[in-house]
Amino acid sequence: MSQHALSVTREQNFPEWYQAVVRDADLAETSPVRGCMIIKPWGYGIWERVQKGLDARIKETGHENCYFPIFIPMSFIAKEAEHVEGFAKEMAVVTHHRLKNIDGKLVPDPEAELQEPLIVRPTSETIIGDAFQRWVKSYRDLPILINQWANVVRWEMRTRMFLRTTEFLWQEGHTAHADKTDAMAETLRMLEVYRSFAEDVLAMPVVAGEKPENERFPGADNTYSIEAMMQDGKALQAGTSHYLGTHFAEAQNIRFQNEAGELALCHTTSWGVSTRLIGGVIMTHGDDDGLRLPPAIAPKQIVIVPMLRDKPEDAAVVEFCTSLAAELNAKTAFGEPIRAHIDNRKIKSADKRWDWVRRGAPLILEIGPRDASGGNVTFTRRDALRDGPKVKSHSQPRAEFVAGAEGLLREIQGALYADAKTRLDGNIRTDIKNFDELAAYFGPAEEDEGGAFKGWVRVSWSRPTGAALEEIADRLKALKLTIRNTPLDSKTSAATCFFSGGAAVEDIIISRAY
Amino acid sequence: MSQHALSVTREQNFPEWYQAVVRDADLAETSPVRGCMIIKPWGYGIWERVQKGLDARIKETGHENCYFPIFIPMSFIAKEAEHVEGFAKEMAVVTHHRLKNIDGKLVPDPEAELQEPLIVRPTSETIIGDAFQRWVKSYRDLPILINQWANVVRWEMRTRMFLRTTEFLWQEGHTAHADKTDAMAETLRMLEVYRSFAEDVLAMPVVAGEKPENERFPGADNTYSIEAMMQDGKALQAGTSHYLGTHFAEAQNIRFQNEAGELALCHTTSWGVSTRLIGGVIMTHGDDDGLRLPPAIAPKQIVIVPMLRDKPEDAAVVEFCTSLAAELNAKTAFGEPIRAHIDNRKIKSADKRWDWVRRGAPLILEIGPRDASGGNVTFTRRDALRDGPKVKSHSQPRAEFVAGAEGLLREIQGALYADAKTRLDGNIRTDIKNFDELAAYFGPAEEDEGGAFKGWVRVSWSRPTGAALEEIADRLKALKLTIRNTPLDSKTSAATCFFSGGAAVEDIIISRAY
Repeated sequence: MSQHALSVTREQNFPEWYQAVVRDADLAETSPVRGCMIIKPWGYGIWERVQKGLDARIKETGHENCYFPIFIPMSFIAKEAEHVEGFAKEMAVVTHHRLKNIDGKLVPDPEAELQEPLIVRPTSETIIGDAFQRWVKSYRDLPILINQWANVVRWEMRTRMFLRTTEFLWQEGHTAHADKTDAMAETLRMLEVYRSFAEDVLAMPVVAGEKPENERFPGADNTYSIEAMMQDGKALQAGTSHYLGTHFAEAQNIRFQNEAGELALCHTTSWGVSTRLIGGVIMTHGDDDGLRLPPAIAPKQIVIVPMLRDKPEDAAVVEFCTSLAAELNAKTAFGEPIRAHIDNRKIKSADKRWDWVRRGAPLILEIGPRDASGGNVTFTRRDALRDGPKVKSHSQPRAEFVAGAEGLLREIQGALYADAKTRLDGNIRTDIKNFDELAAYFGPAEEDEGGAFKGWVRVSWSRPTGAALEEIADRLKALKLTIRNTPLDSKTSAATCFFSGGAAVEDIIISRAY
Repeated sequence: MSQHALSVTREQNFPEWYQAVVRDADLAETSPVRGCMIIKPWGYGIWERVQKGLDARIKETGHENCYFPIFIPMSFIAKEAEHVEGFAKEMAVVTHHRLKNIDGKLVPDPEAELQEPLIVRPTSETIIGDAFQRWVKSYRDLPILINQWANVVRWEMRTRMFLRTTEFLWQEGHTAHADKTDAMAETLRMLEVYRSFAEDVLAMPVVAGEKPENERFPGADNTYSIEAMMQDGKALQAGTSHYLGTHFAEAQNIRFQNEAGELALCHTTSWGVSTRLIGGVIMTHGDDDGLRLPPAIAPKQIVIVPMLRDKPEDAAVVEFCTSLAAELNAKTAFGEPIRAHIDNRKIKSADKRWDWVRRGAPLILEIGPRDASGGNVTFTRRDALRDGPKVKSHSQPRAEFVAGAEGLLREIQGALYADAKTRLDGNIRTDIKNFDELAAYFGPAEEDEGGAFKGWVRVSWSRPTGAALEEIADRLKALKLTIRNTPLDSKTSAATCFFSGGAAVEDIIISRAY
């Protein structure tokens, strides 16, 4: 019998451990549609917390939500050359608008072929840009600051639940500005919204920075990202913000009359995070007993398991649990009502406990007749479940527990962040001197999947572009390495470029990644 | 110059008036994709209020949200015969997963044709049923109560914004139960959720009842609806709830072991409302000056227009407005913080006022230097904008206005409901004796679109089925009439069937409809 609640540990096989958490925490499952997942209530509940928290921040920064069609005419995609190049290869194409029963078989009706195929949106720059072109007439109309919560489809060859799926859920912000200064400020403002949301709400520390030229969004002048370190040492790009320059404005004729009365091109931005964040939470906080959820995004923060034995004392236990849940729900944590829940399912109490351990509920209470009669609360903290191999229980007088519940939830949130922050800060090597050392440190490309923990490497470079950058990218690629970003706080830590030996201008992060 | 804020009145041309409200209230616009609309921030803000209010009610009744793939394998659609018949004719079919540049032209890559076409979901019974079949093993797993907020696509030939669009947003609830009693209770429970939400939040009175056999959802045993009366007298089906019997369970093998240890079929339900509700709100509450929004769903309930004149007094006006908005936002109405907003756009004050009149903001405040210095608030109520042809302004000491704001918003909500309720109750004729009278009353079918106000007719019938019902439906169809539903409270108001002269068993509502 395993010592842990999952059948596989992170150490044994990280990718399999990840799949086990997704399954055993009841977050999601594969669907009959290739590459598309079914997000189950516990997983979707996390997404609802992400939506609520992020939506408030998006609105606070002046954006309004709206909704654009899921379909994009094929000709729109063709307008922006780099964009086509980047996206045209992996999209769902609608070619017919009717099915027909022909010879007893259901087929796309040949008479209902569309004149122009429609693309299921992989992202909405083109169709939103088309609307901007109609909406913007004068500098008085600027900036336009909008966002939408939507599903998007990118036909992926290799999928992994939450991390890379054919359909995923996200928010995409799109804005139009009078000049580069304003658009760049917006790009960085939203990057900061993502950074603070990831750190403060998901308890997931990140490095915010600019992507190198070869990793930019197709059609962007500058792409910024937040990168998080997973427990296998790999990087996860958890959110991006793009300054699109005037590329889309040119392709779609988004022009306005400026204060001088001249016609000028808008500068646009776009930025997004997706259900991928849930994958980040799993790989940042999960342990060998399953998921551990930061209380700020746990659909249920405090789960109460009544220990019933089909005996007369049961009534007192049920009454104790009911009033306790009501008392907790009347209090607040993180500025919202506490989310306490009684698990009344007709299954064994021990099974309930382990179910909530695997799902990562921050506080799990087990209330038996002795607790009820003595006025005590027995609980486990999911962030510190075990003392050695044994599960560690705490006991407190009920009033004390209730009074301290908010503080306890904040403490758990803080502890999860501190753990992850220690991991991130302690695992960015800055002592690797040259490419050979880099290759030796990471080992062969085959060790990428499920290999030993390596973390990230930070080096200085000369910010090469074009062919020189491509050559570096290719050499890194052979080791399954990529440049993640140039941290915003980048101070050049060495005088010479790690790759060329020329003068260094900034630092970059190199690592394996999802 | 028109006496009203819109260029066309309801009386002159109701369909054109509807389009004018959608446009002038800045709710939505047509998109370059046939039949798909762009929902603009003000329209989407209403949808967000609908989502928030209804989502809370769906959760209070024990349902959890989740998310299923947007694509449905073609073979799934083929499984349930009636369902195919009902939906197979109008769906977006994905046949390729890649575009390719061939001879300089972007086309669906012939080498990337899908083995099995995918359908963009028109509704999700089939793919969710497939999951239920995996999830349900024992009676202990039942009921399963889930919901999703999603976009769906039905290829419509004639579209009208919000009312009938190719893509629309909705929620779809799907549940599985051990027996008919439980499933039917669920079906009616959700119908009641829709009824109370429509009446209490949208201020839109409805008649809840059962659809006749010929108007059922494809594959349902019983379909229930809420029907609202629009200001042109036509009915709008605003929400439906279906008892699906064991049809989908049979087609998809959704079976469970019951308490006796035997394998039994689940009874399933589904229910949904959509962005169509916004069309209902427009046609229930709009007037010739534009939209009138019930405060419970107005994205902004109180809009403050500062009357600035580029003079020194402006500073005091701005300060007055800012502190007033803060004071109002700190209070609650309908159990939530009041949504007050200062319109700081750089356009004329009068244009701002009329903009908010057209958008239907419940309370519009115009604050000038005299208000600021005198500590008064000058406002208009959108539900009672005019006194004769003139706009009616009110003035109150600031403290009094702030103290009474919640009550005023409730009063407006109540007034809008009362207006609509009077219209509904006063326009269901019960004195029409036979088909000839019915035909004479409604006039020829051509008068359907934009014709005079007729309202509804209530008659008793013998609840015929099959061919007898089809014959009646055809006769009604020739007059562009349909049977809306059998009101739940139905007491048979006549002894004999309106159509056959046989014994009547219940009443039905007959009308023209959207």
